[in-house]
Amino acid sequence: MLRIAVIGAGRIGKIHSGNVATHPRARLVAVVDPLEAGARALAQQHGTQWATQAQDLIAGKDIDAIVIGSPTNTHIDLIEQAAAAGKAVLCEKPLDLDIAKVNRCLANLKKTPVPLLVGFNRRFDPSAEALRGAIQEGEIGKVRQVIISSRDPGPPPLSYVAASGGIFRDMTIHDFDMGRWLLGEEPVEVFATASCLVDPTLADHNDYDTTMVVMRTASGSQCHINNCRQAVYGYDQRLEVFGSEGMLMNDNLRSTTLRRYDAQTTEGREPLLNFFLERYAESYRRELDAFIDAVLDKKPVPVTGEDGRRALMLADAALESARSGKAVKL
Amino acid sequence: MLRIAVIGAGRIGKIHSGNVATHPRARLVAVVDPLEAGARALAQQHGTQWATQAQDLIAGKDIDAIVIGSPTNTHIDLIEQAAAAGKAVLCEKPLDLDIAKVNRCLANLKKTPVPLLVGFNRRFDPSAEALRGAIQEGEIGKVRQVIISSRDPGPPPLSYVAASGGIFRDMTIHDFDMGRWLLGEEPVEVFATASCLVDPTLADHNDYDTTMVVMRTASGSQCHINNCRQAVYGYDQRLEVFGSEGMLMNDNLRSTTLRRYDAQTTEGREPLLNFFLERYAESYRRELDAFIDAVLDKKPVPVTGEDGRRALMLADAALESARSGKAVKL
Amino acid sequence: MLRIAVIGAGRIGKIHSGNVATHPRARLVAVVDPLEAGARALAQQHGTQWATQAQDLIAGKDIDAIVIGSPTNTHIDLIEQAAAAGKAVLCEKPLDLDIAKVNRCLANLKKTPVPLLVGFNRRFDPSAEALRGAIQEGEIGKVRQVIISSRDPGPPPLSYVAASGGIFRDMTIHDFDMGRWLLGEEPVEVFATASCLVDPTLADHNDYDTTMVVMRTASGSQCHINNCRQAVYGYDQRLEVFGSEGMLMNDNLRSTTLRRYDAQTTEGREPLLNFFLERYAESYRRELDAFIDAVLDKKPVPVTGEDGRRALMLADAALESARSGKAVKL
Amino acid sequence: MLRIAVIGAGRIGKIHSGNVATHPRARLVAVVDPLEAGARALAQQHGTQWATQAQDLIAGKDIDAIVIGSPTNTHIDLIEQAAAAGKAVLCEKPLDLDIAKVNRCLANLKKTPVPLLVGFNRRFDPSAEALRGAIQEGEIGKVRQVIISSRDPGPPPLSYVAASGGIFRDMTIHDFDMGRWLLGEEPVEVFATASCLVDPTLADHNDYDTTMVVMRTASGSQCHINNCRQAVYGYDQRLEVFGSEGMLMNDNLRSTTLRRYDAQTTEGREPLLNFFLERYAESYRRELDAFIDAVLDKKPVPVTGEDGRRALMLADAALESARSGKAVKL
Repeated sequence: MLRIAVIGAGRIGKIHSGNVATHPRARLVAVVDPLEAGARALAQQHGTQWATQAQDLIAGKDIDAIVIGSPTNTHIDLIEQAAAAGKAVLCEKPLDLDIAKVNRCLANLKKTPVPLLVGFNRRFDPSAEALRGAIQEGEIGKVRQVIISSRDPGPPPLSYVAASGGIFRDMTIHDFDMGRWLLGEEPVEVFATASCLVDPTLADHNDYDTTMVVMRTASGSQCHINNCRQAVYGYDQRLEVFGSEGMLMNDNLRSTTLRRYDAQTTEGREPLLNFFLERYAESYRRELDAFIDAVLDKKPVPVTGEDGRRALMLADAALESARSGKAVKL
Repeated sequence: MLRIAVIGAGRIGKIHSGNVATHPRARLVAVVDPLEAGARALAQQHGTQWATQAQDLIAGKDIDAIVIGSPTNTHIDLIEQAAAAGKAVLCEKPLDLDIAKVNRCLANLKKTPVPLLVGFNRRFDPSAEALRGAIQEGEIGKVRQVIISSRDPGPPPLSYVAASGGIFRDMTIHDFDMGRWLLGEEPVEVFATASCLVDPTLADHNDYDTTMVVMRTASGSQCHINNCRQAVYGYDQRLEVFGSEGMLMNDNLRSTTLRRYDAQTTEGREPLLNFFLERYAESYRRELDAFIDAVLDKKPVPVTGEDGRRALMLADAALESARSGKAVKL
Repeated sequence: MLRIAVIGAGRIGKIHSGNVATHPRARLVAVVDPLEAGARALAQQHGTQWATQAQDLIAGKDIDAIVIGSPTNTHIDLIEQAAAAGKAVLCEKPLDLDIAKVNRCLANLKKTPVPLLVGFNRRFDPSAEALRGAIQEGEIGKVRQVIISSRDPGPPPLSYVAASGGIFRDMTIHDFDMGRWLLGEEPVEVFATASCLVDPTLADHNDYDTTMVVMRTASGSQCHINNCRQAVYGYDQRLEVFGSEGMLMNDNLRSTTLRRYDAQTTEGREPLLNFFLERYAESYRRELDAFIDAVLDKKPVPVTGEDGRRALMLADAALESARSGKAVKL
Repeated sequence: MLRIAVIGAGRIGKIHSGNVATHPRARLVAVVDPLEAGARALAQQHGTQWATQAQDLIAGKDIDAIVIGSPTNTHIDLIEQAAAAGKAVLCEKPLDLDIAKVNRCLANLKKTPVPLLVGFNRRFDPSAEALRGAIQEGEIGKVRQVIISSRDPGPPPLSYVAASGGIFRDMTIHDFDMGRWLLGEEPVEVFATASCLVDPTLADHNDYDTTMVVMRTASGSQCHINNCRQAVYGYDQRLEVFGSEGMLMNDNLRSTTLRRYDAQTTEGREPLLNFFLERYAESYRRELDAFIDAVLDKKPVPVTGEDGRRALMLADAALESARSGKAVKL
């Protein structure tokens, strides 16, 4: 049984708390949030303790691991506190918005190594996992092109945008991780173009809402990512991997199989699942499984700090490319 | 080069005339229709002769074959005239509404055998042919269940209904032929139920517009047919064959591959092709190919008079079953 | 909080026990099975009590409701014991194999009414529910034809068959309930044909493995059901409802969205989910939700004893029809 | 009736000759090819004349228009001869490999204007036309992202490659035209990356076989193109256009609707149509329709010389970008 404290009682903290609370091999020992009301409410819902600050809790003997779902700028400190106390960490992405801080943190972690799983939840989606499994079984031979389509149902509030690090570090970072994972090889060049087509005022925040990226690996494999902060038909999440011996495609998941035929439209299906909490509900559960297996059963951590660092590097390169109009070499 | 006269200048005669006129191995030598204006117009369109009656033409030396697209009650006479003159025949379905007349005609034909192809055009649909080919290659093992869904976009005028012989002999007859072809074995029992759900006044004509049929073969294979004279989403034509080793399915054909996503509907496609002239345009061309190959190259006729007779027997049995509420043994 | 005892520690009892144990509004107070080892193991897994017989438990004060997952021939007795003790019941289908016993039980229940939900789990499938909701919203106008395709991945052992009441009462009974639910009107005539195509020795047990049914309602709506005990491609569960204003279709659910393209096949997907425990896992959970809501919140029971009785009547009629070769009026 | 000579008796000349020969408003008056045997064989097949050089024929009175299907380096001369003689031209893509020659030719054409349709056949595909029509009807609002996937079934011979101008001018040029057409706005920036993953020896010819392109318009709309010279599953041709109000997608066309289910795979369909001659057979016919309508009915030419010039400019920019690793401004 793994005793876990969840840091952060917001949207993502609630997901993790619920999953920990119902996991057969875990116990939710505390919920932490500087906003007392939020921490208390979530803790009471799951019949556990709450706190407004994490430090003593992490250092104490009553927990084995923490799940970090607090704001990005708190991640590195919490990871380092946990490492110092020998506690395992499941940390939401991104590790930080500053690659230098991430580099230092990962260097420090080498001295006090603890299991660190970075929350690229999409890797735990059963369809994504089946697709990658098929690549690794050699079903499509050598990977030539990866295409990742990823569009949100609607833009976040501007207040969120301001602290987000921008679309590449906040949203595309998932796709950079997915691209690396599916390519099976590191990108050596990144090109990005970016526009404000949903909300022109984003430009005032030096951010974008509609982007296209192309990456290339040393062997010449290619990856395209397209993103938009708003799709009226719902949260669009598709993958395509084309190889020398075939192609694999993941379409969107839906809540029913219902198709409608009428005088205007045939084969019509429902709009896509609303957003990541719905679309990746199972992925978050399986991510927690993987974390618990890594800690309790000493299995390898499937998404490491180095994975978190590399995705951030790609996001930084994409941002530089979008601003300079030039491809960035890595 | 096969010299062909087309009998009938209506909807179906126009299709056949156009196909004959552009076929590389055929010549359209005449168009015949008792309505002079229709015959003349169609003949002029294709730069050929016209006539208002067929008898002399059939007996003459200038033609090798006739395509019969005239009203059902003229079919048997025309076939017999052609047989007497040694001319090949492609005859629209059904051969006749009276099984006794059909039996006599086929018996007579044994004395003066000529190639006779009965126009079950759906057998020449590339998708249907691929499906049957897969069955015959053994892909799905022993056939267990055949399901045929066949719905028209809208009901015919009551004037048509009156002379049609009723839904089983006019519409379902195509599905009886398809069922026999896909089962690969003769049905020995037919059950049908029938309703007037589109137009209740059809009951006054002793006809129906919405039907379900179940047939069984001696080995226990089963076939279900569903029909309706009206589907608001277009001409619905689907096949499913389930066997011991797998299943084969044919979906509807469409004129484009376009799918639409909006805030209400995703994957939405256009309504189905309007009706048989559009849906089976290629089948009519390939039916003519098969007829010409049979005559010129002495290939076997793919849909024989016996096939026409058996489909009519099944239609008669279904009608009897729908009226009596009992399954009919054959 | 509803205190529930689960009767039966077999395949289906395990499903219900797991769902009760993790339900936020329920408590699993006991597991009952005459086989002590099975009862004990399941009880221990969920940290609850076990018993080998149900009578005292049902009569006692510690439980509010029972879930019956024991063999069919025990259902009626258990329901009557629960009713006598004023306890609510969720009972697996069928209520019994003998319509007379079912009739007596339902008559008795009128004297001591308790909530009784019959476990037609497919009604709680989100896709089925969405489809029925669309019918009820009037999306497709008047229902004309319902088509239910339902094939198992493989046949049960002969020992199961012997006690099952035969394919119509054991397997098709789900489809009879679904047909009634989707038609929105009672069938007045049933025709069935049945064969032994998977296992010819079933004939020695007076049973069948491959069946087709047609039902008709008083207003002329029609329903076709096809069943087979074995489909090599997995558990096949599809619905189609055709109406005056459109059509609704439910395809099979799958565990991933992965499609494969190679030199032989494109769009290839995985075999279907193995069987009902996988396919309807969510339905069983939602069935329990509905039961708990009915008991705790006094909501209407969504699948009543009368529903169970009617499905059994249709199964009996189908069996009679398959044996006599005649349609059976109800 | 438009009197047309087809220049070129190769693969593409045969397509055009066949379409002209059977078109109701056209007459194939000659086939021209420097290889006498090819010209003669094709002419005899269609019962027309043949020639080994085009000049006199173009200048003569017996033709109204030419269709140019000869090697790329002959296009400009033939267009200019036709223009001088006042004859209409349907010219295969690309106009030339040298943008300077194209510019001069188009400048010259202003003095002796004749209808010139450039053969971007994909614009005449019914699915592409329906998709663009939906954009223009405003169905998806403002276009944000266009994604074009275009992969050949297998690479051309190296002899073809040497004269082709490279993948961007030979293959991607179709996609550049499609991108411009769907964006509805000119690209102002092009980035490309390119690899030799199918045949590494292509590098010796300064060519590539696997490419990804990103283009941006002044308003910030984006377009991604992916190409490969070899896809084992057939000729892959897909379009996606994402806009503020929805998304439109075109999938591949197939020759049947057959889907296969077996113990390994469900929903399996046939490999894609082999190559452009099969996939775009209807597009070539409709392209000819549009050309004849433009000449005989004075309708606007749907794909102009300027369209041909712009696509070549984009190809040149992509090649420059792939070589320099920098985005190219236009």
